[in-house]
Amino acid sequence: MADFSDPNGFRALLIGLPGPDSDAVVGAQQRNAQLTKPPGALGRLEDIAIWYAGWRGDARPDIKTPQIIVFAGNHGIAAQGVSAFPPEVTQQMVFNFQAGGAAINQLAKVVGARLNVHALSLDTPTQDFTQAPAMTEAALTEALGVGWDAVDQKADLLVVGEMGIGNTTPAAAIACALLGGGAADWTGRGTGVEGAALANKTRVVAEGVALHKGKGDGIETLRRLGGREIAAMAGAIARARTLRIPVILDGFICGAAAACLSDTKDGALDHCVAGHLSAEGAHGPLLASLDKEPLLSLGLHLGEASGGALAISILRAAVACHSGMATFAEAGVSDA
Amino acid sequence: MADFSDPNGFRALLIGLPGPDSDAVVGAQQRNAQLTKPPGALGRLEDIAIWYAGWRGDARPDIKTPQIIVFAGNHGIAAQGVSAFPPEVTQQMVFNFQAGGAAINQLAKVVGARLNVHALSLDTPTQDFTQAPAMTEAALTEALGVGWDAVDQKADLLVVGEMGIGNTTPAAAIACALLGGGAADWTGRGTGVEGAALANKTRVVAEGVALHKGKGDGIETLRRLGGREIAAMAGAIARARTLRIPVILDGFICGAAAACLSDTKDGALDHCVAGHLSAEGAHGPLLASLDKEPLLSLGLHLGEASGGALAISILRAAVACHSGMATFAEAGVSDA
Repeated sequence: MADFSDPNGFRALLIGLPGPDSDAVVGAQQRNAQLTKPPGALGRLEDIAIWYAGWRGDARPDIKTPQIIVFAGNHGIAAQGVSAFPPEVTQQMVFNFQAGGAAINQLAKVVGARLNVHALSLDTPTQDFTQAPAMTEAALTEALGVGWDAVDQKADLLVVGEMGIGNTTPAAAIACALLGGGAADWTGRGTGVEGAALANKTRVVAEGVALHKGKGDGIETLRRLGGREIAAMAGAIARARTLRIPVILDGFICGAAAACLSDTKDGALDHCVAGHLSAEGAHGPLLASLDKEPLLSLGLHLGEASGGALAISILRAAVACHSGMATFAEAGVSDA
Repeated sequence: MADFSDPNGFRALLIGLPGPDSDAVVGAQQRNAQLTKPPGALGRLEDIAIWYAGWRGDARPDIKTPQIIVFAGNHGIAAQGVSAFPPEVTQQMVFNFQAGGAAINQLAKVVGARLNVHALSLDTPTQDFTQAPAMTEAALTEALGVGWDAVDQKADLLVVGEMGIGNTTPAAAIACALLGGGAADWTGRGTGVEGAALANKTRVVAEGVALHKGKGDGIETLRRLGGREIAAMAGAIARARTLRIPVILDGFICGAAAACLSDTKDGALDHCVAGHLSAEGAHGPLLASLDKEPLLSLGLHLGEASGGALAISILRAAVACHSGMATFAEAGVSDA
């Protein structure tokens, strides 16, 4: 059971989140400087390995048990025609995940990660946020708790992602409410809306933001404009921090969940790396606001944790080089 | 044994290289359009899977036996102080590869690839190209042949890379001779030279280009300004094409080897994808001249096939999604 019983309990946990192990960071930096390569020749792989070592508290760590969690939720605003797909696709895709037929199933297999799927009350969409807050405090707490409890304590790396027809709309509304700018700055094509459908989607975002902006912190914004799968991602990201499990963020919707945490507590995403830059136009500005540089940029815009899962292979490679390479002394190689 | 006995024989093979299987391309495009995802949602992964299918002649292919080959060579111009490391490091790093201690050993392991290392006459560096052609025709033919013969006929994906102290200098000279511009445009930090050392390196490149530019095609330029490991990469890339094995190019030096092929025969690199953008400054312009967009950009500048090896995981993921995902009909998911 989650270690909180209401949103304030969750806020209190965010405030008390642990930091990285500075001894492990220093140890990893010292090891990195001795490995058989020119200084800095592995580029970002070196930074990532040291960062990972710090969070794991181990100067020579290993990645053995990565976990991918996909949370699914349905949205009241889907009835307003904000997606190219009908809402029943959320449940259909959950069945597809369970049967092994989705992209994330193939990706989890190739990167050697455990995949868990949590469907959150799909028969009960959130409220239409142009009319009322998307969730009650109880519904928010429950969804945060599903995410919190979904994290495997033995995982050594976590990717969180989502499935929810219409959910680039709440993500855009959250980003707009927390980060400023106009609704059009944050509203994008999602699964493929354009023209009049995109204008309608932008209107929905604008109306939601007008109704709910400035009514509280990131957690309150998550309740008012988010959705169950978005809240569950936030809960899982926070839980991973308490367990010192580094997190790879997926795309735009995951980024909106993350933004709710960092708005509430500075540094709440220090244990997170951005897995990729999505093709959703506002993802770049969102990542920039979180001060996260994506590892990959391959034009993905699928969700399902797919871009984050792909980045597991980059982290595995970084850590394998760091922990497996010989030093100059061990290999008898002349230093520069 | 290689299917040629002199540089002209190699040229003749380049002229007759096979193209992709257009039926497999069409079949893969049709399959891609039916998979359970919004159109284009897997971004470049979709393009890569279709491209890979075409070269393998299989609309639903698999990647099971990737091969990484690292060629090592020594360079006459190393005596002119163009590198931050002494020339004996080439042999020392070959020993490190054989002992499993280098970055590429760890990367090959995490991506599940076979790694082969070929050291080419390390005790006999090429001629200093500021004085004479780097290689005789016989030495060039031999090095091309080492590359040609190193490709495993059962490989279904190939990454070629190199180790050779000083070899960003011949790579810069080749690029400058084939693509124009000044020596400074193509000469970079390599393993970490700067200031006066970088100016000296640029001078060496300029002298080599002045002596050898315009004396023949890409293959002749490879002979005059290249090196054994660079020629071996070119031989392996060409051989992979005859076997319909897609190739992932590594960094700047690999790109220079590839440029010698495309200068000699248009389309000679159609079976190649750029694995990554290296931190070596001229790699971007070199890839642009080859019309290749890199898959990764992580600031690597190590060589050893490292960036290409990292990209194996991207190709594996692309092909796994393409060939493993359910279609809308199979999964009972509503299409848009």
